[in-house]
Amino acid sequence: MNDLQSLEVTSLDELPTPCLLLDQSKMVANIGKMQAHIDSLNASLRPHVKTNKSISVTEKVIENLAVKKITVSTLHEARYFQSHGVNDIMYGVGITPQKLPEVADLMAKGTSISIILDDVSVAQTVCAEGEKRGITFRVHIELDVDGHRSGVLPEDPALIEIGKILQASNGAELVGVMTHAGESYDCPTTDAIVEMAEQERSRSVKAAELLRAAGIECPEVSVGSSPTAAFAQNLDGVTEVRAGVYVFQDLFQSGLGCSTPDQIALSVLGTVNAHKHNKNLIIVDAGWMAMSRDRGTASQKVDQGYGLVVDLDGNPIDDLILVAANQEHGVIGARDGGPVNFDTLPIGSRVRILPNHACATAAQYENYKVHTGKTVTAVWPRIRGW
Amino acid sequence: MNDLQSLEVTSLDELPTPCLLLDQSKMVANIGKMQAHIDSLNASLRPHVKTNKSISVTEKVIENLAVKKITVSTLHEARYFQSHGVNDIMYGVGITPQKLPEVADLMAKGTSISIILDDVSVAQTVCAEGEKRGITFRVHIELDVDGHRSGVLPEDPALIEIGKILQASNGAELVGVMTHAGESYDCPTTDAIVEMAEQERSRSVKAAELLRAAGIECPEVSVGSSPTAAFAQNLDGVTEVRAGVYVFQDLFQSGLGCSTPDQIALSVLGTVNAHKHNKNLIIVDAGWMAMSRDRGTASQKVDQGYGLVVDLDGNPIDDLILVAANQEHGVIGARDGGPVNFDTLPIGSRVRILPNHACATAAQYENYKVHTGKTVTAVWPRIRGW
Repeated sequence: MNDLQSLEVTSLDELPTPCLLLDQSKMVANIGKMQAHIDSLNASLRPHVKTNKSISVTEKVIENLAVKKITVSTLHEARYFQSHGVNDIMYGVGITPQKLPEVADLMAKGTSISIILDDVSVAQTVCAEGEKRGITFRVHIELDVDGHRSGVLPEDPALIEIGKILQASNGAELVGVMTHAGESYDCPTTDAIVEMAEQERSRSVKAAELLRAAGIECPEVSVGSSPTAAFAQNLDGVTEVRAGVYVFQDLFQSGLGCSTPDQIALSVLGTVNAHKHNKNLIIVDAGWMAMSRDRGTASQKVDQGYGLVVDLDGNPIDDLILVAANQEHGVIGARDGGPVNFDTLPIGSRVRILPNHACATAAQYENYKVHTGKTVTAVWPRIRGW
Repeated sequence: MNDLQSLEVTSLDELPTPCLLLDQSKMVANIGKMQAHIDSLNASLRPHVKTNKSISVTEKVIENLAVKKITVSTLHEARYFQSHGVNDIMYGVGITPQKLPEVADLMAKGTSISIILDDVSVAQTVCAEGEKRGITFRVHIELDVDGHRSGVLPEDPALIEIGKILQASNGAELVGVMTHAGESYDCPTTDAIVEMAEQERSRSVKAAELLRAAGIECPEVSVGSSPTAAFAQNLDGVTEVRAGVYVFQDLFQSGLGCSTPDQIALSVLGTVNAHKHNKNLIIVDAGWMAMSRDRGTASQKVDQGYGLVVDLDGNPIDDLILVAANQEHGVIGARDGGPVNFDTLPIGSRVRILPNHACATAAQYENYKVHTGKTVTAVWPRIRGW
């Protein structure tokens, strides 16, 4: 998709602001780097599309994959990507029983969709619903490998119990185990992420082996978080890796060491509209509605405020950040609170702002203005909702 | 607008989740309360529509106003509300010079739109653009009455200088002064908000009097923030008050004393999909994508996490809050970290979650499911973008 029809200008110097920019070269490099890494470890990628929510982006993400498969965070994403020809989908959020009819509808359209669960009673509900409908739901058992949020512990007898419930029913089949090592987002060092990646791998493989030892087929072992995907050194026994933020990268990932700010493909374009000389602050027309309310870097070593200010070429400007944000006001100041060089950013001048969290910032927009250098080459849509 | 066509169910027990609920009775009560308060102080309301971004909501907000006037935070809002017949608009964010052609387009369509500025050079730019186009931009000078963010101090010679620049040009006219006492959001007590409201009033009226004393007409004195609007005791000299959150209210406003949680009209409907017995946590399908990333109450006396959990009738459940949120996972726990009664919220059961910040949460949705009790009576659209 390459819809420039609604775009009257094709330069970053003239785009209406605020808007969401996507640097195509950086995105392509990010995609290639992760794919090469996972390939080198003899696993496959099942990219998570919750960050991009765009068929135009996802086409680039999956075009060089042997199997065009994705992970979604909502059934609305599943329907959207299915309607654009992507038919191998994992719905990576614990299934809510009321959503099973929507899953069945997708299956009826030819989608190979798998759901995830971590509870005996939910497994029973899924089997009963499948039997009632005369269909077989594809299921991954969600594992807890790091105490993060959801999932059954590999050693928990519930793992085998769920496996046997699925095995005994025609209403469901066990596709495999899956986990998300979300605690990797809190790792203080890259060494700790390397260890977390190995923990994610070994605990998941152990769960699969326990199921197999109990006579239950468990073909797939699916792991993934953007940090562990980036730092995994061994994926023996793992069949696929799920990650999504790597396509764009962001300041939080940079804080973890998964990227550098220079590799971030996503940014917000804004225009300076006021100088507050008495406060050493500059006001820009990109507030939290443009950046999102995400302040994830507040818990990292380098707090990036609401985003890092760079010029149109992507180079940082005097270590300026968005020190505060109101709905439509971004407040630019020096990270150290020191004096601001107002001459660098006259009223009417433009800046780009790198986001803390690509998923949250992109969610504030209806489309991406795709650019190469200062030239806008395409407008790519994105979806939202459930 | 009352579009139930796309809605197959009309009960909170059956709506797909997550979705955004708007309790019509509570909204109407909030609207009436603020209007009676401002009426009693002999001022008029210019409601801010940046919270609701919906003509269906705004029609209710302005239907009993003598003058149907609104404040917008983006020119996209201005175009949208103008296209629905609202023609008296203040664009309440400091004008970016590049946006003047869009303002001129709105004026050409018959909209009485005013812009705001606080800078001599911007005033000159606006005058020059108006003269070039042969039109007269309507201008409010933005005041700094509380050291919050933007605006010129009443005592700053720039105030009179800007007034004279506008007076001397056919390209612009001074409509009045305006301010937003945003520091009221940090007031520790309601007494402090009362004082801030008086400071907002007296400083704004002083600025108007200084302009008038210099021979510059200044018909309007426009003030407003949701807290100062709620607690103002005297509006002598003020012509209009701008506020917007009061229509819905939220937990942050409740923390300030502007409302009670029971008066909040906006909530998110979610479904429980997992029990984490070992962690005393319940997972619900409303994460930060459904709630926004806003954590404003973290700085207040009562931290509400990502939102307060109530039942379908709006009653709090065991002082449960969203203690954490991932993109599509809301994590429900006891505020005090204590044990959770899982029997209260079985898997598949539904909760409503009151938001920290109505503006941010509503921005995550395409529409409101309007309800009276547990019955959905309408679906009202809302817009986004710039």
